[in-house]
Amino acid sequence: MTRGTPKAEITAARAHISETRRPTVAALEAILQTEHRVLDHGFVRVIDYMGDDAAVVQAARVSYGRGTKKISEDRALIRYLMRHWHSTPFEMCEIKLHAKLPIFVARQWVRHRTANINEYSARYSILDREFYTPAPAQLASQATTNRQGRGAVLDDEQAAHVLHLLRDDAERSYATYRRLLNDPDDPDHDADRTGLTRELARIGLSLSTYTQWYWKTDLHNLFGFLRLRADPHAQFEIRAYAELIWDIVRQWVPASCEAFEDYRMNAVSLSAAEADVVRQALTGTAMTRPRNISPREWSEFSARFGIIAT
Amino acid sequence: MTRGTPKAEITAARAHISETRRPTVAALEAILQTEHRVLDHGFVRVIDYMGDDAAVVQAARVSYGRGTKKISEDRALIRYLMRHWHSTPFEMCEIKLHAKLPIFVARQWVRHRTANINEYSARYSILDREFYTPAPAQLASQATTNRQGRGAVLDDEQAAHVLHLLRDDAERSYATYRRLLNDPDDPDHDADRTGLTRELARIGLSLSTYTQWYWKTDLHNLFGFLRLRADPHAQFEIRAYAELIWDIVRQWVPASCEAFEDYRMNAVSLSAAEADVVRQALTGTAMTRPRNISPREWSEFSARFGIIAT
Amino acid sequence: MTRGTPKAEITAARAHISETRRPTVAALEAILQTEHRVLDHGFVRVIDYMGDDAAVVQAARVSYGRGTKKISEDRALIRYLMRHWHSTPFEMCEIKLHAKLPIFVARQWVRHRTANINEYSARYSILDREFYTPAPAQLASQATTNRQGRGAVLDDEQAAHVLHLLRDDAERSYATYRRLLNDPDDPDHDADRTGLTRELARIGLSLSTYTQWYWKTDLHNLFGFLRLRADPHAQFEIRAYAELIWDIVRQWVPASCEAFEDYRMNAVSLSAAEADVVRQALTGTAMTRPRNISPREWSEFSARFGIIAT
Amino acid sequence: MTRGTPKAEITAARAHISETRRPTVAALEAILQTEHRVLDHGFVRVIDYMGDDAAVVQAARVSYGRGTKKISEDRALIRYLMRHWHSTPFEMCEIKLHAKLPIFVARQWVRHRTANINEYSARYSILDREFYTPAPAQLASQATTNRQGRGAVLDDEQAAHVLHLLRDDAERSYATYRRLLNDPDDPDHDADRTGLTRELARIGLSLSTYTQWYWKTDLHNLFGFLRLRADPHAQFEIRAYAELIWDIVRQWVPASCEAFEDYRMNAVSLSAAEADVVRQALTGTAMTRPRNISPREWSEFSARFGIIAT
Repeated sequence: MTRGTPKAEITAARAHISETRRPTVAALEAILQTEHRVLDHGFVRVIDYMGDDAAVVQAARVSYGRGTKKISEDRALIRYLMRHWHSTPFEMCEIKLHAKLPIFVARQWVRHRTANINEYSARYSILDREFYTPAPAQLASQATTNRQGRGAVLDDEQAAHVLHLLRDDAERSYATYRRLLNDPDDPDHDADRTGLTRELARIGLSLSTYTQWYWKTDLHNLFGFLRLRADPHAQFEIRAYAELIWDIVRQWVPASCEAFEDYRMNAVSLSAAEADVVRQALTGTAMTRPRNISPREWSEFSARFGIIAT
Repeated sequence: MTRGTPKAEITAARAHISETRRPTVAALEAILQTEHRVLDHGFVRVIDYMGDDAAVVQAARVSYGRGTKKISEDRALIRYLMRHWHSTPFEMCEIKLHAKLPIFVARQWVRHRTANINEYSARYSILDREFYTPAPAQLASQATTNRQGRGAVLDDEQAAHVLHLLRDDAERSYATYRRLLNDPDDPDHDADRTGLTRELARIGLSLSTYTQWYWKTDLHNLFGFLRLRADPHAQFEIRAYAELIWDIVRQWVPASCEAFEDYRMNAVSLSAAEADVVRQALTGTAMTRPRNISPREWSEFSARFGIIAT
Repeated sequence: MTRGTPKAEITAARAHISETRRPTVAALEAILQTEHRVLDHGFVRVIDYMGDDAAVVQAARVSYGRGTKKISEDRALIRYLMRHWHSTPFEMCEIKLHAKLPIFVARQWVRHRTANINEYSARYSILDREFYTPAPAQLASQATTNRQGRGAVLDDEQAAHVLHLLRDDAERSYATYRRLLNDPDDPDHDADRTGLTRELARIGLSLSTYTQWYWKTDLHNLFGFLRLRADPHAQFEIRAYAELIWDIVRQWVPASCEAFEDYRMNAVSLSAAEADVVRQALTGTAMTRPRNISPREWSEFSARFGIIAT
Repeated sequence: MTRGTPKAEITAARAHISETRRPTVAALEAILQTEHRVLDHGFVRVIDYMGDDAAVVQAARVSYGRGTKKISEDRALIRYLMRHWHSTPFEMCEIKLHAKLPIFVARQWVRHRTANINEYSARYSILDREFYTPAPAQLASQATTNRQGRGAVLDDEQAAHVLHLLRDDAERSYATYRRLLNDPDDPDHDADRTGLTRELARIGLSLSTYTQWYWKTDLHNLFGFLRLRADPHAQFEIRAYAELIWDIVRQWVPASCEAFEDYRMNAVSLSAAEADVVRQALTGTAMTRPRNISPREWSEFSARFGIIAT
């Protein structure tokens, strides 16, 4: 009945080494199958992957017919693709994860539609007694500036009270669930009572109950997920998963991740009106190109804002 | 705080009549905006639609270049398209529904990925005190022949006990939710206590809590939804929604629905081995074409199974 | 055999006026069914639509639970959604177009996958003698700065030569096509010769041959199409379609289009490094909020770049 | 300028062998990177893959919680999944192909939208002088029974004439293309003339011209592609690709392919009316279960048609 991945199964999966002519990524092979913990009972495991940074370049070169080049040029091409919103080469990499996550997190996650999912079914099987309880540092009041964020953290006494209420209800709901199921394998099985069908017994469980799934997506759509869910506006709990996945992805496709950071995550979008403000402020200013901006980007940037490139 | 659609809003929406050059379907206009009840607190409303049976034909004729024909030929063309798995003409019709549904139903529904969804957000807003309680006739034991179905209905006493437990937990969880929120607008508001942020206060709510959404999809994908969810193997609760939607769709595109019934819902798929059995049994049999099978289909059918068409 | 939409059919379609309880957009009703010409033989017609600016707002309010507000607040909400990359409310509007376009344009267009298409089939039907010939002003040399753009326009003599070659080959290929088909309805039909099947006879036609299709998509994906295809980097020919569609869309959902222009089309994305440059240049500068930036956006903008808001 | 994959590149790619903890399929590794020829100049190469038959089972068991079982039970589970239209476990396998194909084939292929594509761009690069010429055995007249099929094969003399016309036009169009480009690297380069931009020079090329792409999709969607394109109603040329891919897929996931053959490709769908005919004919018939039908399927089958199982 245990819903984590048995140690023996992970060890066995990791022990199985084959030869392949496919591209491999040593850093990802090193952590394949292992569980990375997140929240109180959750985890993420990499089950399989397809492609690497070079696969992005390879696909782009089919399209754009650029001859095979050196590694430094691969990085430049990846940055070019990201900068100009070319998404299809990033779709050529794929990753498959096994995650255990609270149902309320799963409900946000599943809104990313371009992905493949196989979720544990509580119509077929019995859910474990595992539910998410926030750490005290996460117990905050409603933000006043923002309709969906968190404000100040509760004081210790109030936090303790909240945790007590959440835990108490979750435990009670789970006890009811087992009681309704009245499973013959249960120690408390009552032979005089008929169990309720699993698909109904579960409806009283709380949204904090853990579920699990296999989730598979391509790198372009994974970046879309990370952009929204590793963002400070995302709810802390799904952000914890997104940040863990982000760490994994950086080991898998470092050059693509670097480009994604520079041109998406840490980029700033100026509205038409804001761009005008910057243009008015900078026109005629003399500036020297910083080292981390390429000559081509610098010439585009300085031309756009009327900067005198020195 | 009420989450049903206010009567006044429905009346106002229905009162607003405009002229349009678009195709309209009188039977659907007659029920536009009105709430069709389902389960104990759920509903489905048609908000908008695009196209009709003729729009399917029109799109098919762009592809296949058949000249404009009579209504009877439209029906025949729709049946031909359905029979031969031509899906794109059915994608040319679109419908937008507003539904209120228990969260565990929403979790099954959302697995149909080719659809557009805007769901009520419990990060922004407070959920109503509404949760699904099954009718006693729905309280069944686990099926023994099938890992995901329902078996015999519980006796009255056991059913009453189950309902008591489900209601009690759901009410307790909801009371905790309101207590955690400690919303200033609540009559029980406690000014000495800080409320918990909405996005956390909700995590203890039960899966039977009602949510709501706008859901928009095309007719081809809607048929895919109905095929799986109006099927006897679907869980009763989502089937209740699917059957209600099926009634609506039949009023919208009757010819497409008739074809869908004959070639999908009530069709039978024989495996290669089963088809061999039928072939061996029927080869050489003499049979007359039934009236509800077209000459062309009859000749294909009788040839396939070695029947002597008389 | 004519492949444009017969005048009589358009007139009949436009003459058919019904009453509807759905939202309608007068400006779009006024041009429904009519052909908007583009390139030498192409056109775009609006066949049907679902929703309007208010439908975007309505869907967003289901999600975010904001009470019904005034028109000015609708506009502000639409701008907020666009600014914060909320895509699902824009998916609640749908449009269906009939377009006639050269095959090489169709090949670029079809890469936008989240759309429904029914294309004229040259396996079923015979294509018209219509192929795209560029206007002389479009005949340019290869750009030297850019591997995919156009450079200087050819001089008159060279342009005439190019047009002669393109026309001559297209006409010859089309004559071969008809000769291969040897269609009994053709005036040149040769009774002594067997025609070649349509699906093969067409393979020698040029990529400039016109095809046509019904194309249906939602507003969010349509914006994605416009962002790439109404961009100066898009090939002139598909841009001509995108710009025409943009004019149509602005009549349909003006508030959404205004937001799309300000936060996408005319927005500027600064990379992390470029944002640093602007920050260094502007920190400590005193500036007054321009009228076309809202107080909230101004406070975010000035805080981001260290501007002293005055 | 050659557009096939250079032998040296294939040899180098194949020589690179790594160790991996991912599932591998020996039969597929053996043909990885190699070119499988199709039509006169086309090919298909497997570039990468993710998963195997066991990955389908593994994903299904997350959903349905069945314990790990023996190989024979894996096969039975895969057959169960296919029979009951469970698609998500098959989405857990992914394959990436490199194909070279005529443009008119690419236009049919790209209609399968749930796939990732990077196509060679004739805006960036120059196309090779390669176009499809049908083999004489493929030159058939239009089918008379079917608006989109092929009828009798042309006689030798007529075939020779057709081939002459097709080749002549394709060669002429290609010569015009090179002449318009006037590429400095061409032996015929004319220094006195400006070349036409690549994106326009190509528009006169014929639909038989070869293009190439990387195409990546999951096993469920690949089965959808094969179901339509390996079907006798598909045009011969795309069927040639589908049949080649089918051979590859059978080496990759043999158990899934066997199930796909039995429950999709070689299955027969009876309409509601046809199922009634079979039911009337077979009710009361006594039959013994054939060995290739499982007891469970036999009991469902015989019950459905009123057969007395002996």
